[in-house]
This record gives sequence, structure tokens and C-alpha cells, in this order.
Amino acid sequence: MADAGNPVRARGLLAFCAQVFEKMGVAPDDANVAADVLVHANLRGIDSHGVARLVRYVNGLHDGVMIARPEERVMVETPTTITIDAGAGLGQPVSHRAMLKAMEKARQYGCGFATVRNSNHYGIAGYYAMMALDHDMIGISTTNADLLVVPTFGRDSLYGTNPIAVAVPAGQELPWVLDMATSTVPRGKLEVHQRGGKAIPLGWATDERGVPTPDASQVLENFTKRAGGGLLPLGGAGEEFSGYKGYGIGMLVEILSAVLPGAAYLTSVYPRDANGRPLPANLGHFFGAWRLDAFRPAAEFKADMDDLIRRLKGGRLAEGATRIYVHGEKEFEETDRRKANGIPLGAKVEASLKQIAVDLGVPYDL
Amino acid sequence: MADAGNPVRARGLLAFCAQVFEKMGVAPDDANVAADVLVHANLRGIDSHGVARLVRYVNGLHDGVMIARPEERVMVETPTTITIDAGAGLGQPVSHRAMLKAMEKARQYGCGFATVRNSNHYGIAGYYAMMALDHDMIGISTTNADLLVVPTFGRDSLYGTNPIAVAVPAGQELPWVLDMATSTVPRGKLEVHQRGGKAIPLGWATDERGVPTPDASQVLENFTKRAGGGLLPLGGAGEEFSGYKGYGIGMLVEILSAVLPGAAYLTSVYPRDANGRPLPANLGHFFGAWRLDAFRPAAEFKADMDDLIRRLKGGRLAEGATRIYVHGEKEFEETDRRKANGIPLGAKVEASLKQIAVDLGVPYDL
Repeated sequence: MADAGNPVRARGLLAFCAQVFEKMGVAPDDANVAADVLVHANLRGIDSHGVARLVRYVNGLHDGVMIARPEERVMVETPTTITIDAGAGLGQPVSHRAMLKAMEKARQYGCGFATVRNSNHYGIAGYYAMMALDHDMIGISTTNADLLVVPTFGRDSLYGTNPIAVAVPAGQELPWVLDMATSTVPRGKLEVHQRGGKAIPLGWATDERGVPTPDASQVLENFTKRAGGGLLPLGGAGEEFSGYKGYGIGMLVEILSAVLPGAAYLTSVYPRDANGRPLPANLGHFFGAWRLDAFRPAAEFKADMDDLIRRLKGGRLAEGATRIYVHGEKEFEETDRRKANGIPLGAKVEASLKQIAVDLGVPYDL
Repeated sequence: MADAGNPVRARGLLAFCAQVFEKMGVAPDDANVAADVLVHANLRGIDSHGVARLVRYVNGLHDGVMIARPEERVMVETPTTITIDAGAGLGQPVSHRAMLKAMEKARQYGCGFATVRNSNHYGIAGYYAMMALDHDMIGISTTNADLLVVPTFGRDSLYGTNPIAVAVPAGQELPWVLDMATSTVPRGKLEVHQRGGKAIPLGWATDERGVPTPDASQVLENFTKRAGGGLLPLGGAGEEFSGYKGYGIGMLVEILSAVLPGAAYLTSVYPRDANGRPLPANLGHFFGAWRLDAFRPAAEFKADMDDLIRRLKGGRLAEGATRIYVHGEKEFEETDRRKANGIPLGAKVEASLKQIAVDLGVPYDL
């Protein structure tokens, strides 16, 4: 396959990305966190949120809509909560700090929550939720995102794919990790169908009239033109398959991530001033941690999680099905494969990284 | 319409239900709470969870699988969390107490959570989440439920419709209240289609082979026989419309509501002993409250919620649509109507209440 490229090692990729962030002026510790979140996405097989996005961060830092060394401020703090203004810095380092804060508060009081405003794209939601796993805590992480999703009965995309991630420790079994966009599918799935010239199922997206369409190209073009239509919430259009439930979960994420900390909501994350110059995104995030033993002895909880996972996986299969999955399982398996065999970047992403290397004078030697 | 019956006043209905619970041995305060939760469901238009269920509680209390005056025990408590064993009592009174505890902890520390085990059906999830609204808090409530939903690629219903409710205060606008089962539709929708002799859309439920079916009667019969199949998670069967996301949200509710407090999980809520005698359900619930001002000044938050609600409602309509709703809006409107015009019980429910009245010697005078 012409597009396959050579698989690269996670370690080298991480070092390269960290160097790039540092070169753009990001403090070394923050550069490492930002790089780690990107590479972690690739390791889990979520390539849309991996190093393919490095160029966007480089551009954002270059344009000044992302601040390399932001002034972070604590806006409100209680024993169990904190709201941080990220000062338009990268989303990853402040999110990492916010999740650590939530966990520190959970350690002391049982649970802890942190919200972040004035931030940028933070990568995969699951990264932060999974930070809780080694501490016998349940972790949660949500973020708002760019305008791509239409509310039920609406014509325009008024909110984002607004992901929610929850990570739950188990005992012998792998942790249970939910990490999902609240739309039926992400934008990337439309792009895959467009490239393959394939129709999309009715229930994924609507055209400029707000009507479900099989035409991925039209939807993507309408995004660019802001002509109307967009991705449908989980559950699809109208009420037949309860799309208002997906719309509700998406709006819950918008409220917790953006309204609660005072970030921008129902707003493009690529705002521009009157002269067309890009402005900071003012994205918001929400993080939380519950200590297992604040509810029940952790060992008992984890033994029951093992049993729950085994019973789900051992359930009778639907006709034609080959396997019942539990959440996170596919991604853990992909991580194992990619740790062993390397991360397949694809020619396009590889080229974008090499271009960054040339532009910034950072060695690309993976 | 022969089935319409006479609409009854909420106040009279509440008094009747409370008397019934008291007659069954429930303490007066608890009887009032249990009655209020039922009537509140009717007021919101969720008749499936209203006084139609009174007979089940009467039977449960009669059979001894629900204990009228249970011994509740605190299993674990921290500054921000508590787990309560409900002693197989009614779900409503212990849930009311648990939510009050969560709010009390939130008042003191910023947020608070309570889980309950060894409980019974607690009515509508939204009731408890909405308790937070008058206190400038966001409230959340979830519960596990009887085995009706199949996991993605699975043949058997291994978990319940597992509802999630979140209530968020606004300023001038009505609160935003999400209260949803995590299956595409509830069992009741199948019963409505069965009565009308109508096919159900493919994507609501599966037959005994685990394959989507249009035949509601078959699905309902299979439930009775435990023959396989069941309701599909939000997103439907397989992966095409991302049903594994609905399965994930449902499992999250199972974990928070049942595994976290140590209740029964992936288990029928109508268990029986070796001799076929009914046993307590051991259901679990999860409650939480976040103080708005633990993250941001409450007035600012509520003003932004007003704006968010207005922008959603004021969005351009999809072709053929007449209105964009926000969550909870329909139910608030129904409450207004029913407060003005009374609650239409229907002849069947009215008859069931009258039978209870005769059986227990409680006056039915609505």
C-alpha cells in the first residue's frame, strides 16, 4: 500500500513531538505532556487525534492563538473543585495538571473535579480519565469541540462531537475505558467514505436542509461553507431512534465542559476577529475522579468489575456475531500491537511531520 | 375514549398513595416521599413510572421482598461520599435521603455523591436530580434496572434500560433536565406498538437469535420466556450507528449504580430462591451534586445557561421540523397542563387503584 509508510516506534515519535513543542517555545515538561497525549492516541489506534494533529498545534502556536508559555490562573477553588483559566495555552498540559488536581482532591476528600476554560484542543478524552486507573479511582473527562453536530430538529451544527471518557479500574482484567464522541460518528468517518466514494448510512449526517443524506462530500463541503447540516447525535435524526438522547448527552458535555468553567459554548473553536485574524479558541474541559474506597473496599469493587467484564464477554452471541467487546478492549489490543510492531503513520502524516522537522530544524530520525 | 377515565388532581392522588404506603406499614414520612415520586412522574407525563406502578409496590411489600421499615446502614462515608445499604426498603425514601446527603456534602465541600445498594425500583431518575435545582447545584441520578437490554453483538439481555438523569439550573429559563433510558426505547414503547398491531422500527429490539426484528409481540414474549433478544442500546444493533456507545453509557450506569455500592449487577431484579419464592431485588443507585459556585459564580453560570437554551431553541429548523426542544421542556409543559387539568389515569390504572383501595380499606375519593 502506497499510503502505509514505515511504522515508527512510539518512543522516537514522542521525543520528536516533544522537541517540536519545545522548539515552538513550550516549557519542557509541558512539551512532554503534549507529545505524550498525541502519541498515546496513536498507540490506542485513534490516529485522527494523534500526531496527525501536530501541524495544527505548530500553526496555532505560530499564529499566537495558542500560547506556548501561558499564564494559568485559578479562578475558583474549593476543597473538591477547581476552575483553571488556561491562558490560551495548549490543551494538554493544563488538562494534565487539572486531572492531577482532581485526583489530589479525591485522595483527600473522596472525590475531586476540575474545569478548565480558555483552553485549546486537548487530544483524546481518554488520556486524562485513564490517569485515575493506577490510583484506584474512577476517572472522567469531557470537552466541548468545534461546531459539527446538529441538535434534534435543528438545521445547523450548533455544538461539537463533545466526547466523554470514563475509565474504571478492574482487578485481573484490563480496565473498562469508555471514550466516545456523542455524535453517531465523527467527521473522520465521513472523510473515509468520501475518499472511498461510498454513500454514508442515513442517520449519520444531514444536508444543508437538515435532512439525512447519503452524500459525505456534500456534508463536508457544507461544513466549509457553513451552509447548514452536519453530523447527527447518537440515535440519528428526529425521534424514531431517540436522537434527542444523543443530543442530550452532547449538551451535558457542553454544559459541564464549557458553561461550568465559563468557556465559549455553542461557538466555533476557530473564531476570527473583524479583520479575519484568528482568535484563541476558548475551549473548555471537565475532569473528575472518584476514589473507589470512598464507596466500597477497592478490592471488592475490582473483583466485581472482573466478574462483570467476564460475564459480558462470555455472553451468548447474536447470530452472525463473533465477539462481545467490553469498552477499551480493542484499544488495549491495538496498543499491544503497536508497541510490538510500531505505529503506522501513513505517507501523508509522515510527510507532514518531515515538513515540520525541516521548517523548525528539528531532526526527524524515527 | 373508553380508556380515558376522569383526570384526577395531583394532590388527591398523592394523599391516596401515601395512605396506601402507610397502610402497608411504611413510616409516614417515607410514605409521603414514595407517593410524591410516583405522582411527580405522572405530572411530568412519564405515566409508565407513575401511580400505575403502585400495585407493584403493594405486592412487593406484601410479599416481603420490599421491607416497609427497613434497617438502613451506612457502609462507607467520607467528607464527600456515602454508601447506604437500603435494607431492601422502598427505593424512593432511601434515594431521597441519599440525594439530600449528597447535597449536604456539596454544600460543605463543593460536591457530594451517594450510592445505595440493596434497594428497590426508585421511580423516575429525574426526581432526585431535580432536587438539586433549588440549591444552585447540578444534580445527577442513575439506577440499574431489570434485564432488558442486549450488549452490542450479544444475544441475551444482560443489563437494564439504566436511566441517567441530570438537572441543571438556569436563570430566567426553565432548568435543563435530561432524564433518559440508555436503550433506544423503553419496553413500554414495544407494548404500545403491540397493542396497536404496529411493526417496530428495526433498531429498537432483537429477536431470540439476537437479530433486529419488527415484531414487538415476539420480543415481549421472549422476555417472559427468557428466550433471548431484547431492547437495543441507543444507537441500535451492531456498529453501523454506533450502538456500542449506547451500550457503553448503559454499562457506565451499571458500574456507578450497582458495582460501586456493591449491589447486584447484570442480574434480574426479580430474583427467586430455589423454591421459586421471590427475593429482594438488591438494586443500586448513584446520586451526586455539584455546587455551581464551586466552579464559577452561580449568577454567571445561570445567565449563560439562559443564553445556551435560547440559542438552541432559536436555531434554524430542519426542513419539516416545527420546533427545537431543550431537555426537560416538554415535561415542564406537561406538568403545567396536568396541574391545570388533572392527571388522566386511564381506566386500567384507575381500576388498579380502586382495587388497592378495596383490598386495603383505604378510601378512594379523587
